[in-house]
Amino acid sequence: MGSTNEKNNNSLIPDKKYKKTEKKAPKGFDSPNDFFEHVFNDKEMIWMGQNTNHLHGDEINSSMIKCVKSKEYCKYPPPEGFSKLKKLVLKDLALENLDIILTAGGTESLYLCMQDLLTKEDNVITCDPGYLIIGSFASRFAKEVKYVPIYNEECNYKLTPELVKENMDENTKMIILIDPLNPLGTSYTEEEIKEFAKIAIENDIYLLHDITYRDFAKEHSLVAKYAPENTVTVYSFSKIYGMAGLRIGGVISTKPMIDSIKNVVVNDLGVNVIAQIAAISALESKDSWISRIKNTTFNNQKLIKETIDEIDDVFLPVYPSEANMIVIDLSKVGINPKDMAEYLLDKKVFTREGNYTSKLFGDKYLRVSFSIPTEEVKVFCDEFKKAVDVLKP
Amino acid sequence: MGSTNEKNNNSLIPDKKYKKTEKKAPKGFDSPNDFFEHVFNDKEMIWMGQNTNHLHGDEINSSMIKCVKSKEYCKYPPPEGFSKLKKLVLKDLALENLDIILTAGGTESLYLCMQDLLTKEDNVITCDPGYLIIGSFASRFAKEVKYVPIYNEECNYKLTPELVKENMDENTKMIILIDPLNPLGTSYTEEEIKEFAKIAIENDIYLLHDITYRDFAKEHSLVAKYAPENTVTVYSFSKIYGMAGLRIGGVISTKPMIDSIKNVVVNDLGVNVIAQIAAISALESKDSWISRIKNTTFNNQKLIKETIDEIDDVFLPVYPSEANMIVIDLSKVGINPKDMAEYLLDKKVFTREGNYTSKLFGDKYLRVSFSIPTEEVKVFCDEFKKAVDVLKP
Repeated sequence: MGSTNEKNNNSLIPDKKYKKTEKKAPKGFDSPNDFFEHVFNDKEMIWMGQNTNHLHGDEINSSMIKCVKSKEYCKYPPPEGFSKLKKLVLKDLALENLDIILTAGGTESLYLCMQDLLTKEDNVITCDPGYLIIGSFASRFAKEVKYVPIYNEECNYKLTPELVKENMDENTKMIILIDPLNPLGTSYTEEEIKEFAKIAIENDIYLLHDITYRDFAKEHSLVAKYAPENTVTVYSFSKIYGMAGLRIGGVISTKPMIDSIKNVVVNDLGVNVIAQIAAISALESKDSWISRIKNTTFNNQKLIKETIDEIDDVFLPVYPSEANMIVIDLSKVGINPKDMAEYLLDKKVFTREGNYTSKLFGDKYLRVSFSIPTEEVKVFCDEFKKAVDVLKP
Repeated sequence: MGSTNEKNNNSLIPDKKYKKTEKKAPKGFDSPNDFFEHVFNDKEMIWMGQNTNHLHGDEINSSMIKCVKSKEYCKYPPPEGFSKLKKLVLKDLALENLDIILTAGGTESLYLCMQDLLTKEDNVITCDPGYLIIGSFASRFAKEVKYVPIYNEECNYKLTPELVKENMDENTKMIILIDPLNPLGTSYTEEEIKEFAKIAIENDIYLLHDITYRDFAKEHSLVAKYAPENTVTVYSFSKIYGMAGLRIGGVISTKPMIDSIKNVVVNDLGVNVIAQIAAISALESKDSWISRIKNTTFNNQKLIKETIDEIDDVFLPVYPSEANMIVIDLSKVGINPKDMAEYLLDKKVFTREGNYTSKLFGDKYLRVSFSIPTEEVKVFCDEFKKAVDVLKP
């Protein structure tokens, strides 16, 4: 891990600052929606801004096309999802003893967990940097969400069991573990996972384990194995499966917990039929593509590392990342990450400035994801080097 | 309209009875989900149980297949929806001066409206029979939901402006108008719509106008034209567009109202890309199929009417229905609608017993939808006649 540059920014900031995620429109656009539509529709854009996965072949296309042609989409799917798909997800995690409900994306699962598990007397612990929408959902239902600053070497850039213990109080009801962590790519050892399980059981609190990036990690442990009664595990098809635009995910827990979540369901008419059919194909074909996609993604990360190592005062606080994205710190070289993201966008490379994933450290870093073709990563590396030269003070 | 048979069942029943929609598994199934999966997967099943539309050609398939092949689904869509689709929906309603947000089905729009507009001090007025999930969502956020009984001739089987005035109190904050009404198919005249608009403006309350079945009606007026500041209009692609399994819909209102709803959004990563592409095709091709589908649906309804007229003591309380479903009253002939639905299911005809759409009158009627091929309606007519003979006491 590289060194970091931190001053006066390592303390909690008020919960209310997190209630809204960054919604400002980038320069030249009327609204964030216009911006996203512009990048979506630009076929030449290199897609490193949303941690999506562009490395799949046609593994899932033929099943989707068959489903379209069958016109089965004119019927409602079973409201809680196809049983075949539910079984495949549980098998993928070796959690066959647990239950699952499918939702329109992992996002909706996160929301349902917060709605079902939290009350206005409860506090929640999460971290900054992190995937802020999770805390934002929690704040709709909880008393307070504590964002623990973790952008430093002492905690290895992650919310550790020790930090959780330090920040717990009598009202703490939930700990949010994003693992691997968006944006830093840090993950937990099995020992740490066991420690979290112990904390949850001893204090009668919930662990929300968001495992969206699990399959990019070299090794990964599930807290649901050690504290099943206390854990909700949130699963997504958006990243390793390359299905972000199909909006499908789910939440896994014990049967009583899932039954409870069913009572607060929003989309009681089920998840898009074509997305479910695609998800079944993706899981059934997983053995045939997972090594290739992990290897390409990791090699892409090495290319980025080599580029960054050549540039003075720019560094990777965490390397290797256990996810398909990495944080590039620009604070030492004195470049505003927004300027960097705008410069790169102009060169048809879509990345994300830090304030999308941090209120405390957002002015320090750029986040780039790299589960894209290697030749596109090379374009990024070239453009990034030039950008530092152009933008540094 | 036929006569009705009503005793002691015309008064409000407590709100709490509505908080959960019917979740019991039909005979022979472990859970409602198993039941739905069974009917979904049975290719021979005649689909008259969910008001879905099975009359489309290939209008939208080719755009979906193109989208699948492009692999654009590996990216996130713009979070609030494609601007082209938003404009097409507003144009379809001639409400170009208003704003829209797209959601994973009209259901999610209903939920967001309730979450954003209601507080624990507010009362809501809706009707029984009706699409009960809407009231159930309202009860999550409101103080009380009043279900006005409307299964009688005096009110023409709909929630009239007079009934609303009778049931209003100082806490009334929202009136839910399902129009045409699921399950009865009643709709409002322009005069009635104007009256509702006046009530809303004078009393500073919201009208939630659920127009899911609008395009099946001979004529239809939008309350948003007369009270735009007070109205949220909920739009669905599940019925006339034949896209129930794609889960896409939206809510239309003034810009300030839509901005407010955006603050409580659940799926902040947008709606399934393929569903949006299909919706664009469906709207662009609408002129080419709408007359055919409306005509077939109405002719199917006439066939059902002719069959019912031949059977003693079975009647249609509302005819014609302005939607793609109708209520068949079985109370005079003494047949339990559950028994009828089970009998028909055994003959591969999926219909719905009344308690799915009514707590007060659910034991009186069967609901059947008929936007399906005419030969399938004929099978229903034959089987229904036989069923009455077999089941009547």
